[in-house]
Amino acid sequence: MSMNSFGHLFRVTTWGESHGPALGATVDGCPPNVPLDASMLQVWLDKRRPGQNENTTQRQEADAVKILSGVFEGKTTGTPIQLMIENTDQRSKDYGDIAKTFRPGHADITYHLKYGNRDYRGGGRSSARETAARVAAGGVARAALQALAPKVQIIGYMVQMGVRHIDRSRFDWDEIARNDFWVPDAQTAVEWKAYLRELRKSQNSVGAAVEVVARGLPAGLGAPVYGKLDTDLAAAMMSINAVKGVEIGEGMAAAALTGTDNADEITMGPDGPVFSSNHAGGILGGISTGQDVVVRFAVKPTSSILTPRKSITTEGHPIEVITKGRHDPCVGIRAVPVGEAMMACVVLDHLLLHRGLIGENQGKIG
Amino acid sequence: MSMNSFGHLFRVTTWGESHGPALGATVDGCPPNVPLDASMLQVWLDKRRPGQNENTTQRQEADAVKILSGVFEGKTTGTPIQLMIENTDQRSKDYGDIAKTFRPGHADITYHLKYGNRDYRGGGRSSARETAARVAAGGVARAALQALAPKVQIIGYMVQMGVRHIDRSRFDWDEIARNDFWVPDAQTAVEWKAYLRELRKSQNSVGAAVEVVARGLPAGLGAPVYGKLDTDLAAAMMSINAVKGVEIGEGMAAAALTGTDNADEITMGPDGPVFSSNHAGGILGGISTGQDVVVRFAVKPTSSILTPRKSITTEGHPIEVITKGRHDPCVGIRAVPVGEAMMACVVLDHLLLHRGLIGENQGKIG
Amino acid sequence: MSMNSFGHLFRVTTWGESHGPALGATVDGCPPNVPLDASMLQVWLDKRRPGQNENTTQRQEADAVKILSGVFEGKTTGTPIQLMIENTDQRSKDYGDIAKTFRPGHADITYHLKYGNRDYRGGGRSSARETAARVAAGGVARAALQALAPKVQIIGYMVQMGVRHIDRSRFDWDEIARNDFWVPDAQTAVEWKAYLRELRKSQNSVGAAVEVVARGLPAGLGAPVYGKLDTDLAAAMMSINAVKGVEIGEGMAAAALTGTDNADEITMGPDGPVFSSNHAGGILGGISTGQDVVVRFAVKPTSSILTPRKSITTEGHPIEVITKGRHDPCVGIRAVPVGEAMMACVVLDHLLLHRGLIGENQGKIG
Amino acid sequence: MSMNSFGHLFRVTTWGESHGPALGATVDGCPPNVPLDASMLQVWLDKRRPGQNENTTQRQEADAVKILSGVFEGKTTGTPIQLMIENTDQRSKDYGDIAKTFRPGHADITYHLKYGNRDYRGGGRSSARETAARVAAGGVARAALQALAPKVQIIGYMVQMGVRHIDRSRFDWDEIARNDFWVPDAQTAVEWKAYLRELRKSQNSVGAAVEVVARGLPAGLGAPVYGKLDTDLAAAMMSINAVKGVEIGEGMAAAALTGTDNADEITMGPDGPVFSSNHAGGILGGISTGQDVVVRFAVKPTSSILTPRKSITTEGHPIEVITKGRHDPCVGIRAVPVGEAMMACVVLDHLLLHRGLIGENQGKIG
Repeated sequence: MSMNSFGHLFRVTTWGESHGPALGATVDGCPPNVPLDASMLQVWLDKRRPGQNENTTQRQEADAVKILSGVFEGKTTGTPIQLMIENTDQRSKDYGDIAKTFRPGHADITYHLKYGNRDYRGGGRSSARETAARVAAGGVARAALQALAPKVQIIGYMVQMGVRHIDRSRFDWDEIARNDFWVPDAQTAVEWKAYLRELRKSQNSVGAAVEVVARGLPAGLGAPVYGKLDTDLAAAMMSINAVKGVEIGEGMAAAALTGTDNADEITMGPDGPVFSSNHAGGILGGISTGQDVVVRFAVKPTSSILTPRKSITTEGHPIEVITKGRHDPCVGIRAVPVGEAMMACVVLDHLLLHRGLIGENQGKIG
Repeated sequence: MSMNSFGHLFRVTTWGESHGPALGATVDGCPPNVPLDASMLQVWLDKRRPGQNENTTQRQEADAVKILSGVFEGKTTGTPIQLMIENTDQRSKDYGDIAKTFRPGHADITYHLKYGNRDYRGGGRSSARETAARVAAGGVARAALQALAPKVQIIGYMVQMGVRHIDRSRFDWDEIARNDFWVPDAQTAVEWKAYLRELRKSQNSVGAAVEVVARGLPAGLGAPVYGKLDTDLAAAMMSINAVKGVEIGEGMAAAALTGTDNADEITMGPDGPVFSSNHAGGILGGISTGQDVVVRFAVKPTSSILTPRKSITTEGHPIEVITKGRHDPCVGIRAVPVGEAMMACVVLDHLLLHRGLIGENQGKIG
Repeated sequence: MSMNSFGHLFRVTTWGESHGPALGATVDGCPPNVPLDASMLQVWLDKRRPGQNENTTQRQEADAVKILSGVFEGKTTGTPIQLMIENTDQRSKDYGDIAKTFRPGHADITYHLKYGNRDYRGGGRSSARETAARVAAGGVARAALQALAPKVQIIGYMVQMGVRHIDRSRFDWDEIARNDFWVPDAQTAVEWKAYLRELRKSQNSVGAAVEVVARGLPAGLGAPVYGKLDTDLAAAMMSINAVKGVEIGEGMAAAALTGTDNADEITMGPDGPVFSSNHAGGILGGISTGQDVVVRFAVKPTSSILTPRKSITTEGHPIEVITKGRHDPCVGIRAVPVGEAMMACVVLDHLLLHRGLIGENQGKIG
Repeated sequence: MSMNSFGHLFRVTTWGESHGPALGATVDGCPPNVPLDASMLQVWLDKRRPGQNENTTQRQEADAVKILSGVFEGKTTGTPIQLMIENTDQRSKDYGDIAKTFRPGHADITYHLKYGNRDYRGGGRSSARETAARVAAGGVARAALQALAPKVQIIGYMVQMGVRHIDRSRFDWDEIARNDFWVPDAQTAVEWKAYLRELRKSQNSVGAAVEVVARGLPAGLGAPVYGKLDTDLAAAMMSINAVKGVEIGEGMAAAALTGTDNADEITMGPDGPVFSSNHAGGILGGISTGQDVVVRFAVKPTSSILTPRKSITTEGHPIEVITKGRHDPCVGIRAVPVGEAMMACVVLDHLLLHRGLIGENQGKIG
């Protein structure tokens, strides 16, 4: 019941603040004998790492992850894996002026009210820097998936930045890794670069939507009622900093559909059931169908902006807040690897749960 | 780690199938000395009860709830409260034809694959009938909230049915309870009645969106990172049958906003901070701000429709599925009290968690 | 985190009071397709049932268990199994005089202080009657074990009643089921009958020690540090009413041993390692060795006795308490099937956990 | 459901191996604004630290704990506290010879069978070195108790080493901290020193029993049935390495008592109820009475001894095992601060649970 943990059998607890000595994740429940070393996690951390191009914060962090436990001679042992990332570029003085003011739209005020004691340096625990720990943990989940269910692929990409959407008619899986925005469409990447430069110049930030797909997942993962695969995905994505909405398949658009439109019709293929469409996003009754599992989430714009906003101080005095420091104009970009990490953790967790509770699928078709 | 439970300190486990002898909820963690009797729960069950008008399934169920434990001389004792609702109108023969076929868009196929053994009568465990147990549990949560935090009000209403939206300029809280659709706007209720009649005639069903608001909530509820108030709300709502998307405040629309637009500016009022707007939906960094907590979710259209859809049998043979039986043309309507119940459970749970972990808010303003 | 639940994947929540309408257990996490009907549970309930001979309370309860959910056409479906036992012989007036007094050595006073509201009839929630629900749940666990690990046998027996111990040189497994005391030694049964009659006559009660053995368990169940098999067994047994001590293998006697004495030496047998002794009680480092798992627990004497004891009333006035009503002179006797039930639940839970987290044992010998 | 975590609201997850780079504890759920720095934890670690006298292992470890998160400007923030202890004196070569053999009575064989991959250096995860992390976490719990319930005192001491018991007629609380054995009796300390020297010379080890008392605890902590205070204490103590038995109050001796003997009679004192005795160990029905909470546990003798014992290799070949390296002749001595730490964690956890679920005691006497 830890407030900083997620997962059932594969259970991750993150810890650490933006400007403390280190942050990390305690990963419990990784199966033994999974090949693992720090370089396998670093790949994903590098994807999330700030300061790589003009579109993200200029904070320079190596984000070098160390494995302190749970791995022996290149393999997991089945015991807890401690992942530590030391903070190196902590210009705390950038943040001194927010010690006693609340950024509108930021967790400053709620932390203050609840705890009365917050590490204000860089947002402390509420900083998106915490997501580095999730990405490291997601790397462990990916390594375990590679060993247990090698067909599973997890791919995230942006589908919207501010008022700009991707053009799904140009969707190209291979393009995602080639551009700074993780968009499946080269032309969009060019356009967004200009759009974001404009926003940054106007001292503003912007929201985004990210889609994460798990491909190659077997049918049968999940459980009814509250241990649903989509329940856990919704919680996982909503727990990411700045996320305000989560959708499975059609998502909010399902409200506008009729039953005839929404029915993913079924035919029998050579390897089992084949669906004519995937309005359901690969999940029916909380259990995976064997289709792609499709999750989408919206990230709000960063509240740390250079445009002045009205607020108050801890003494209750009015103040105009301008947030200097180094911030992402669109945190949604770096949310892509975070969403992937959460998907990897949830999928591995449900694979283990399914194996534990059921063994293997008990029903056949044909 | 029960797959059929939710909540941390206030913990609900639902059980039962659509056509078994009974269904219910085991409610653990209700504080002692809360005035409670069955009639206080029945109010909410009656709101969800089917067969009350032409807009919902014609199944006739009294949905009479019995309290089997945890209440003594009209008050809770602090021990588990068992709530049982006996099933009475079980025309199982209606469902015999779905024993060996899969309704497109329904959990039939995933239950079959996973468990190999499903109570197909009325959808068994996957039936929306399970939500009666949630509503009963939500009634317990409401009673406890009334005792512990009497200012808290929880109100749900429909905001969309199919392509029709409510008109927020006509929003009237008092109207919600007056019409069959729980809409805050009398004119919409009239229009929707005609719209739904049309859909039913065309042997179709339709999706919906429901908004649930918790008013009067103190600031400070929730916790960072994974025990977030919004994380638990997202999970709670996504766990409801047929829900495909969950939003907090701006929700998916946050993706299109800029930082200046999204900032809920703060001024100091006589009783504490006052926010110029509520894009955040009353939650920042996972912790309540003291504003209204606003959650929205989309319900997909019922998959049980009279229009034929292509599917397969358990033997893998092609078949056209038409679902007779008594089904809701728009399950979203009856999802309103269910969403309220989930909100009540989550809010009470976080009140108890906050009291346990923090005591009372430790930071002041002014 | 329910206070009334135990188990990780196989999770049991009990509910109900001694003199309410019913009590029972909500069992979540039972694998699907396990053959199950009420008669399979009744066998174990009958073993615990009161009023069967002069050695136990004369309360007459049929203890007839009903399965309200989770079983379809004679097999489990993988969804929650609700087990209900209706209370029939509730002579509440027997207990009216304890509404405002506290029996020394009984939970009356702590319930009063904590909750301020207790169902005093028959001890309410603190009555050993709650253990009927555990026995029913244990019956589900046994059925699942029969399906998943048919070699596992779970057998409990008394090893001590008051100052009388069994004679292990006369140990006979077959004798256990033949006598009223579940002792593995016919002569002891005869002697204890006289001893207990004497105690009852002197209006007293007496403690007992019970041993429960799980035979045929595979090696590898459990996990280090806190998910230990012995940790869960200790918790399971200590949670039974009136239990004050729990031992694994040598138990408290291990304190007196030297390392040379305590070492269970290992040789290689035809089917794997063979141990020269079982001081460890079948568990090393929290993980099963493949030997018999041996747990022992002490049950204190019933506090409800006819001999007057000094106490106070809820007003704080002095009073002499004599507990009339129908009570067991030695609750340890009926604790035997309860201990077996807890063992069955823990063993099944760890089988599922092992399957989920590890799959199957990953190390071989030879 | 992490296998390496304990606690409900105050939740501790330990990680790390004996000879890895570091080990530690992730502590979640510590209330905010508790004064805390590393030196406050170091006090307790120093008490457990090896190599301090001839009675314990000669491994030299500074056991210097670092706080990596959750503390800001000398106070807890309410976010996870990461405690890290770097391993410095890792003579791994001492252990090379156990890589392929199993020490009788040790977890070597069960780890091998389950995981197929064990960090054999110094016992890896199964080493009692893991308890350093518990002691550090216990230090956090003590600091929080000091802030929340300053009357609570937690004191552990040895009551038995091998066949030698303390003499309770000479019990002196002040003596405990003065001798190497944490015994409440100076004469015993002298005798035990000679006894242990003898055992060490004979290349043997010996078991022990430790008693831990929590004084000044309010009545009302705990909950019935499974969230019992004694259930959690039993689990906490049994989870410590080498523990084979746990007792509350009379413990196993309760089996021999009659109801008249066992009744702790109650009278009314100036500040509430007064008990004539404490057979119950301060817990009735799983809930604290306000008396001292008394827990006792037995620690088996170290299996790592210089006397040869029969065993097998991973290939199944017979071998005689002699364990060199640096081992405690009586691990029970250093188990004293570990038992205290577990008690502190459980007590704090139940204080928070009680506050969350109940608020404050709802029943009065007089």
